[in-house]
Amino acid sequence: MRVIGIDPGLRRTGWGVVDVEGTLVRHVANGVCQSEGDDLATRLLSLFVALTAVVSAQRPEAAAVEQTFVNKDAAGTLKLGQARAVALIVPARAGVPVAEYAPNAVKKVVVGVGHAEKAQVEHMVKLQLPGVKLAGPDATDALAIALCHAHHARFQGRLAAAIAGIRA
Amino acid sequence: MRVIGIDPGLRRTGWGVVDVEGTLVRHVANGVCQSEGDDLATRLLSLFVALTAVVSAQRPEAAAVEQTFVNKDAAGTLKLGQARAVALIVPARAGVPVAEYAPNAVKKVVVGVGHAEKAQVEHMVKLQLPGVKLAGPDATDALAIALCHAHHARFQGRLAAAIAGIRA
Repeated sequence: MRVIGIDPGLRRTGWGVVDVEGTLVRHVANGVCQSEGDDLATRLLSLFVALTAVVSAQRPEAAAVEQTFVNKDAAGTLKLGQARAVALIVPARAGVPVAEYAPNAVKKVVVGVGHAEKAQVEHMVKLQLPGVKLAGPDATDALAIALCHAHHARFQGRLAAAIAGIRA
Repeated sequence: MRVIGIDPGLRRTGWGVVDVEGTLVRHVANGVCQSEGDDLATRLLSLFVALTAVVSAQRPEAAAVEQTFVNKDAAGTLKLGQARAVALIVPARAGVPVAEYAPNAVKKVVVGVGHAEKAQVEHMVKLQLPGVKLAGPDATDALAIALCHAHHARFQGRLAAAIAGIRA
């Protein structure tokens, strides 16, 4: 199964793609879509177009997006919400189911603790995807989200197999 | 010039289209796109698809979207931001320039005061577009936004003509 993780942001939206086969997770690609243009509509459209091109090229079978921190800065929350809509619509439009994970859940799965530092997340992403070249912090976060979904999907698969085994 | 006004909302996104010719403003159509589906990605996609169909059918030359109230409810702000992204991306994707107006600016242009009640806005929309049948409060707000843009564009046109007259 090919999974794309997306870390939405109005300036930069990170993405990372991994292939999952049994217990094996392999890095495919990662990068950053940067928004262009002066007005908000143009910037959102440029993100939409860039992310659509990524999804077309990478052909993921599942997508995962981080749930947004609703912080005290309302203007920031609004901007993030707008970028997040792009991250949700683009895979859905390509027929790819989109899962959402809370930031702490991502860190807990990838690092082992919910309140991990950025550096710890990067370290664990590199450890789990040997030889990976990271396109920046946003791409690193996106790969962490993809890894979280990969682990989650594998666990669900094992659970389903175990239940089938009990019933058989 | 044909103008579409859009009032974004995650459940219901209102839209209203008017034609502007000189001092004449004529109602073309109005309606509401309702989101469908259980998860956020599916709901946003359904809004995106529905609004894309409206823009394709109505072929506006300009779009106007209300600037969002950044209120105290962060979760509400986030939802609105996500719906708002759809309202901005869909016309931009069709090559239609998107203008943004603050809610008070819309009321000031349409009603004459910045803090008008909903009923006043509806009254003035009906007065300016005789015989209009309104598809609901969201469609009414969308028509008010379209009217605001129509008046604004006409003023800009008169200003440009006056400046050209002075220079001639």
